[in-house]
Amino acid sequence: MPEKPPFAPPGAAADLEEGSALTPKFDAEGLIVCVATDAHSGDVLMVAHMNAEALAKTIETQEAWYFSRSRQKLWKKGEQSGHVQRVVELRVDCDQDAVWLKVEQAGEGACHTGRRSCFYRAVRLGPAGQAKL
Amino acid sequence: MPEKPPFAPPGAAADLEEGSALTPKFDAEGLIVCVATDAHSGDVLMVAHMNAEALAKTIETQEAWYFSRSRQKLWKKGEQSGHVQRVVELRVDCDQDAVWLKVEQAGEGACHTGRRSCFYRAVRLGPAGQAKL
Repeated sequence: MPEKPPFAPPGAAADLEEGSALTPKFDAEGLIVCVATDAHSGDVLMVAHMNAEALAKTIETQEAWYFSRSRQKLWKKGEQSGHVQRVVELRVDCDQDAVWLKVEQAGEGACHTGRRSCFYRAVRLGPAGQAKL
Repeated sequence: MPEKPPFAPPGAAADLEEGSALTPKFDAEGLIVCVATDAHSGDVLMVAHMNAEALAKTIETQEAWYFSRSRQKLWKKGEQSGHVQRVVELRVDCDQDAVWLKVEQAGEGACHTGRRSCFYRAVRLGPAGQAKL
């Protein structure tokens, strides 16, 4: 028997935007996009996705859980590496289709390349044909 | 005759992660997720999507352009309201499927509700059944 979904379905725009109920709008694949920022520096560490279970576990445990699209499975950030993300604050946007986590990042960093942030490259601005990292 | 796509197709992981070419990985709908933060406060202002044209125009004009999924059209942020986003820095993540814009937000704010940020509500952490905004 399937478990009761942890969140009620999204309502009309007024409820989504001004209501006090968390009713996330998951996409066709059952996912919501999530931005994790460093609670201290404010830097964006990573962008990932959550399904309902990942979001519920994150809220409940105050550690970040995500859903891997490539592996099609739930994963706890830092489960293997120990580089967990302790959630200081969790925010949701106006139409409840995106989540912002402010986290304390344990260990070296958030990126699988070993860097602190996944966003380690800036793009040169100007004519797009010449855009370089 | 279609215009030449402004970006080369993404290569193997090593090129995506360590190369110097911007080769964004657009999803099946031709979109990439984009996080805009306030260049001064560091707050996340909004999460939206870009297609190749929006990304190219953002790089070229140094003002934020997005692609509206609901309206299925390119839009320049602040085109009607005047609340444009001047791009101070544009970063791309390790696998080039997400973009981070640091912006100077003109006018009142980034959110269509009139607020400075779309993320104006925090979720109460703890047992998920009781998660409230």
